[in-house]
Amino acid sequence: MKQYLDLEDIKDLDNLIQKAITLKNNPFHHQELGRNKTIGLLFFNSSLRTRLSTQKAAQNLGMNVMTLDLKTDSWQLEFEEGSIMDTTKAEHIKEAAAVISQYVDIIALRAFPTLIDKEQDQKETILKSFQKYASVPVVNMESATAHPLQALTDAITITEHSIVKRPKVVLSWAPHPKALPHAVPNSFAKVMQMMDVDFSITHPKGYELNPEITQNTPIIYNQEEAIENADFIYAKNWSSYTDYGKILSTDQRWMINLEKLNNAKFMHCLPVRRNVIVDDSVLDSDQSLVIQQANNRTYAAQAVLKELLENL
Amino acid sequence: MKQYLDLEDIKDLDNLIQKAITLKNNPFHHQELGRNKTIGLLFFNSSLRTRLSTQKAAQNLGMNVMTLDLKTDSWQLEFEEGSIMDTTKAEHIKEAAAVISQYVDIIALRAFPTLIDKEQDQKETILKSFQKYASVPVVNMESATAHPLQALTDAITITEHSIVKRPKVVLSWAPHPKALPHAVPNSFAKVMQMMDVDFSITHPKGYELNPEITQNTPIIYNQEEAIENADFIYAKNWSSYTDYGKILSTDQRWMINLEKLNNAKFMHCLPVRRNVIVDDSVLDSDQSLVIQQANNRTYAAQAVLKELLENL
Amino acid sequence: MKQYLDLEDIKDLDNLIQKAITLKNNPFHHQELGRNKTIGLLFFNSSLRTRLSTQKAAQNLGMNVMTLDLKTDSWQLEFEEGSIMDTTKAEHIKEAAAVISQYVDIIALRAFPTLIDKEQDQKETILKSFQKYASVPVVNMESATAHPLQALTDAITITEHSIVKRPKVVLSWAPHPKALPHAVPNSFAKVMQMMDVDFSITHPKGYELNPEITQNTPIIYNQEEAIENADFIYAKNWSSYTDYGKILSTDQRWMINLEKLNNAKFMHCLPVRRNVIVDDSVLDSDQSLVIQQANNRTYAAQAVLKELLENL
Repeated sequence: MKQYLDLEDIKDLDNLIQKAITLKNNPFHHQELGRNKTIGLLFFNSSLRTRLSTQKAAQNLGMNVMTLDLKTDSWQLEFEEGSIMDTTKAEHIKEAAAVISQYVDIIALRAFPTLIDKEQDQKETILKSFQKYASVPVVNMESATAHPLQALTDAITITEHSIVKRPKVVLSWAPHPKALPHAVPNSFAKVMQMMDVDFSITHPKGYELNPEITQNTPIIYNQEEAIENADFIYAKNWSSYTDYGKILSTDQRWMINLEKLNNAKFMHCLPVRRNVIVDDSVLDSDQSLVIQQANNRTYAAQAVLKELLENL
Repeated sequence: MKQYLDLEDIKDLDNLIQKAITLKNNPFHHQELGRNKTIGLLFFNSSLRTRLSTQKAAQNLGMNVMTLDLKTDSWQLEFEEGSIMDTTKAEHIKEAAAVISQYVDIIALRAFPTLIDKEQDQKETILKSFQKYASVPVVNMESATAHPLQALTDAITITEHSIVKRPKVVLSWAPHPKALPHAVPNSFAKVMQMMDVDFSITHPKGYELNPEITQNTPIIYNQEEAIENADFIYAKNWSSYTDYGKILSTDQRWMINLEKLNNAKFMHCLPVRRNVIVDDSVLDSDQSLVIQQANNRTYAAQAVLKELLENL
Repeated sequence: MKQYLDLEDIKDLDNLIQKAITLKNNPFHHQELGRNKTIGLLFFNSSLRTRLSTQKAAQNLGMNVMTLDLKTDSWQLEFEEGSIMDTTKAEHIKEAAAVISQYVDIIALRAFPTLIDKEQDQKETILKSFQKYASVPVVNMESATAHPLQALTDAITITEHSIVKRPKVVLSWAPHPKALPHAVPNSFAKVMQMMDVDFSITHPKGYELNPEITQNTPIIYNQEEAIENADFIYAKNWSSYTDYGKILSTDQRWMINLEKLNNAKFMHCLPVRRNVIVDDSVLDSDQSLVIQQANNRTYAAQAVLKELLENL
């Protein structure tokens, strides 16, 4: 692995999942690998799990960690080629990415979408610009359209908790008061397509994800029908992709409760709005895997960083 | 020790003070203890001494440190049970505390009071919620009503600088332009009650601290009388507890000067308003212990963290 | 070296440059020197290169790093002697510097000028106050009037890339939409005066730097004449020193382009406004040294920190 921008950078998913589980059992066994290596964690947006788990993963591997909050610590960046920089943006990504590459061995980056300018978000300008101008490997800590560290985490968690050979996994849209990105459902859909699972998506009409991502995945508009006999229900809100960034529904009937859960395990990437996305009774039950997912964030990141370190 | 929420978590104060003094003489002798252990420093509020000294203490013990500024880095947290989270708070403390516990071995937390809602402050909602939902030990880096790391520091400092068997220690209220919490005077009163000292409190009427904390400690409304022959004068402002969070007096005659200090040592937790709480001449004299107190913050934290690490 | 406030703290510049180049070849050879030593990086202002490169330098030497953003993490500081602190400033520099000195072995500090109050900026109140009240060495990470780590970096870079015995180096003012400090041009002028180079400065009338700094350095108001046959052109904007902090010109004819560059190498401290200070074609050419300069920031800082550690 030379970078981790999206799931396509994984050569063998099963192998990477197994490596992550091995690291989970022995997190400190590779500290020579990261000795005198530094990761730079660059945040354009808030983070709790990603910030802590990626830092933990790097430290488990013996790496040094430098964190930079680009919204407060540093300057505004210009991403436009050929721009005459006479307004508020003080530094061009060409310099920023090349300069940061002088100080770190791996760059990890979080940059959310605008949810206003669909074309710009789809282009992944920030992530792709860092990739283009950095001279070190770049890791996506959630970009405009993808969250591949979360997806790898989810794949690990489903692998660990699956009790049938080919589990039924349903990604179920849930209501939310704020317009949310498509990164998590996009990456979850992609990683499920890479696994031997019976995967489908359920959401109200108008919430179709990018068809280039969902591809052949069945989309079922009737939640009750979709989740029947599910082994894993992954709840997640997203805003409309077609009517870009809009909230078309806040229909509480899409919230997951114990009755809907039935015998399935409940998954969510967190943070989760209790009693909006999912009922308290689900999160507080043994069927909820959300804390295990959060824990696996460390080992997903550690597996990726280990591969990158081995290829430096 | 399994947690350090308040002074009641100390089993043997004298012993802990002696351990801290031993660590001060050999701060780096226990680095194997903290190896591959991580402390998470969570700040809802600003900090200088606490941030640096707790980080230093952890690093002295060989620990990794991850700092999270909850007011800027992350999401707003919901603390209410059963809340329907459809407004601004994106994550419930149940998830936040459980998730952070996946990444760190000890959580240290700073969360100031509102000084508006007495009942809520007294309940210590934030600190207690973290304790309840975290699966790792929690350390109080100053909560709504207590600052036990400062109190332990103060106990160490008085132990080091006491030249009589049973020193006279006076906590003297001082004026301040802003309403301040009760955490420091509360914890100082508690720790003095645990030591073999002649302890009293002096303040203007209306500034009585919580009587459940002051208990039998003499309260003297005449400062001159109270501080006579004192060995240690600990100046500190706090807002009214009865008329909750209000400033009832800014009477400059309560400021400590050299004449009042006489032969006593001067103490304050810092930050201190010069020429409001205390005259320049006191702080600039050899009788001031404020810098020694600040230094002891490291060893108080280190003694506590060492006990917690030994009990993990 | 006992401190690094300005270039005068360097005893032997050539020797320090050679030490930096040696460290660049073997950055991890002195990790025992920094073991259990801590540097405190204190920022009153934004930073990217300085934050990352100084942290990297310290970690290369085996040091622990504690970063404090004084504008957000902590309290407002009072610098006035004898002030009655009854307004917004909660802590006096006397305490802050003495307290921080309890937790760190070296203090590194960034504090930009006001560009409004010339007298105050010239006094370097923040930097000098830290020096006065800290009990540990202080390093200047850019103050009101000086950026000596950048200047040392620039001296290293010119040494590395010089192909003639006595290169011609020109500091060329460039236009910029925002009023900028004099710290970089001041320190660059000073360090060039310390080296065996043919150094001159070119800028529009009214942009004369402090004459106590420029001293005998030739000032040429005609850019074309000044840069003729230059080996190194260092572009940089600054606001007027005489008409303090004012923008007197945004004349785009002062921008550096490939024609002006001719055979010279291009230098800039970054961040740089593309197509305002310098044309894209220059920055994207092999004649640009800006990324090499950024890289050398690490080894300039490391050479300084190593000297300070050896003298602790």
